[in-house]
Amino acid sequence: MQNFTFHNPTRIIFGKGTIAKLGAEASRAGKKALLVYGGGSIKKNGVYDAVSASLAAAGITVIEHAGVKPNPVLSHAREGVKKAGENGCDIVIAAGGGSAIDEAKAIAAGAAYSGDLWDFFSGKAGIKDALPLFTVLTIPATGSEMNSGCVITNEATKEKFSAMGSALFPRVSILDPETTMTLPATQVAYGAVDALSHLIEGYFSTTDRDVIVTDEITHALARSIIASTERILKDPRDYNARASMMWSATMALNGLQSLGYGGTSFINHAIEHSLSALYDIAHGAGLAIVIPAWFKHHLRKDGPARLEKFGAAVFGVRTAEETIAAFEAWSGKIGAPTRLSDADIPARDIPKIAENVMGLISKWGIDYTRTEIESILNKAA
Amino acid sequence: MQNFTFHNPTRIIFGKGTIAKLGAEASRAGKKALLVYGGGSIKKNGVYDAVSASLAAAGITVIEHAGVKPNPVLSHAREGVKKAGENGCDIVIAAGGGSAIDEAKAIAAGAAYSGDLWDFFSGKAGIKDALPLFTVLTIPATGSEMNSGCVITNEATKEKFSAMGSALFPRVSILDPETTMTLPATQVAYGAVDALSHLIEGYFSTTDRDVIVTDEITHALARSIIASTERILKDPRDYNARASMMWSATMALNGLQSLGYGGTSFINHAIEHSLSALYDIAHGAGLAIVIPAWFKHHLRKDGPARLEKFGAAVFGVRTAEETIAAFEAWSGKIGAPTRLSDADIPARDIPKIAENVMGLISKWGIDYTRTEIESILNKAA
Repeated sequence: MQNFTFHNPTRIIFGKGTIAKLGAEASRAGKKALLVYGGGSIKKNGVYDAVSASLAAAGITVIEHAGVKPNPVLSHAREGVKKAGENGCDIVIAAGGGSAIDEAKAIAAGAAYSGDLWDFFSGKAGIKDALPLFTVLTIPATGSEMNSGCVITNEATKEKFSAMGSALFPRVSILDPETTMTLPATQVAYGAVDALSHLIEGYFSTTDRDVIVTDEITHALARSIIASTERILKDPRDYNARASMMWSATMALNGLQSLGYGGTSFINHAIEHSLSALYDIAHGAGLAIVIPAWFKHHLRKDGPARLEKFGAAVFGVRTAEETIAAFEAWSGKIGAPTRLSDADIPARDIPKIAENVMGLISKWGIDYTRTEIESILNKAA
Repeated sequence: MQNFTFHNPTRIIFGKGTIAKLGAEASRAGKKALLVYGGGSIKKNGVYDAVSASLAAAGITVIEHAGVKPNPVLSHAREGVKKAGENGCDIVIAAGGGSAIDEAKAIAAGAAYSGDLWDFFSGKAGIKDALPLFTVLTIPATGSEMNSGCVITNEATKEKFSAMGSALFPRVSILDPETTMTLPATQVAYGAVDALSHLIEGYFSTTDRDVIVTDEITHALARSIIASTERILKDPRDYNARASMMWSATMALNGLQSLGYGGTSFINHAIEHSLSALYDIAHGAGLAIVIPAWFKHHLRKDGPARLEKFGAAVFGVRTAEETIAAFEAWSGKIGAPTRLSDADIPARDIPKIAENVMGLISKWGIDYTRTEIESILNKAA
């Protein structure tokens, strides 16, 4: 078990009716909020009204910043920074899924920085400060509501890059599972794959294979995600399944999932980021395509032990091959794509995708050759 | 799944050689530390020297408060408050197990309060403030290093009471598993039972039996504790087992273990607190005696479902009776007592013990009759 530091100061307020608590929490940090959200689904499911009522009751003025894209883009985040500055916003509130939260994080950091916010993503500057951030989560998937990272796509350069900094931990995140009751089945599936992928990245890239406790935690969260997803797809109104899914997805990337592993490579995410930067597909869909292909690469390179252990604990199977098959079967069953062709990505694009991946992994310090990346992508064709 | 709030701001620095980081961390909060520790085991295992060197290097002056008892007592904590005040200490540092940390918490709160510190335990006052607290953990067991509670025994009244307050979260806790390598087998066993008991309290007193994610987390930590203990008792120098045990015990009472359960009754702890208040036995030993007896009571009162689920996931058994037997067999195997007589507590004392328990559970709001308590104790005879 490798040394680690763990610190996660985000306060989680979880359950039915909890959005009403947002205003009181946010008013401890500021009085003028930039409210960041997406395409307006929060106006249909009541979240927008609940957020607005709670903020108004606490005397918080709201400046709206709507229109966050599913893969949030740099130009829109820059607009948010400008709007926050012009209006003197002293807090940022995200309402939505990981995209709204990630863009809100980028804006919160950009608003406390004199340069251009892409500097944080290109590696030119570190995040030293940020406006206080509050979130209301409506899609269990990315874990962004309880961590200090965010991902933004630069449309001009086709780079989907990430930035981190402890100033980005949300002060408070409100998780009301009732906001997820109307999520369509595809978003349930993509969210489940994304959450599971965060566990897989740590578990399979660990430099230390004797970490009893974190292996057990990973198995536990993976089992919970799979069991919850199954119940949700059977009965979308199953509150307890929605609730377990929501909390499992948060814990799957709040830091706990990789303690003692000595680092996580996020190789599947790197490959997926190129897919969604180039083809604007959903993050969870891209991961469902990449992971089985990467599993096959991992099996050949690192042997069956880790896949066997994961498969036995999570899917109740015996061999590495059965683990890969079980993962693919599960993705397919919940409606996620499993091949590049399922997402209309032609195999002839593989060299171009690999080129994009190489740019990202050199930045992340992941040691894969271009031949390896192409080989993984070919397994996904 | 019931609503909850989760917030745990303690920074964990985990691993080999990490005590060297104490001084730099502590110096952000103060310059004069009250160093709280027990009977001197930290002078034998190198912890005292490592702590002293790190604090000296950071320019922190140390006032010593040694002699914390295994069940820390009020009179000694009061002395600590006096010493901290007289010397103008601005931080408190605990080095040791849960006893040293609990007493340090009581002192930290008492030093920031104008009245008598027992007020926090009797319920007369709430904890509003405390001196910043840092801990160096040497015994995995109580979880006190990452929570906001503490337990103190009033020798005069024979009351072992608890107090909580968010000001009591340690700022930083340093967990170096190497400090546990020389722990005697009995302390390993008592620590394992204590950690497991924290999981059991939440899992079996939940008002909600459909919390997929927290049930899975509980199973995961219980399995990790049991597997780690087995390896430690086989090979006390097994670093990875020591490390998994240490982090599992911390997580078993850092709040995560009961989220969504709608509250935890701590009935086994209440009964055990009376045993150690009256007979000064080790907390883990008392719990090992109480839990199987309480399991039998629970089975009769609430049915087999919960015991079956726990036993299947943790011990690989099928029935409630087999779960109880497996727990007793495990306690016995690792060297913990399983009956009152094993700890030289005579059955004729049961009415007196029950009397003491009733005082505590009325304070904790646990709804058990005296007849029920006596019946549980009789099952432990």
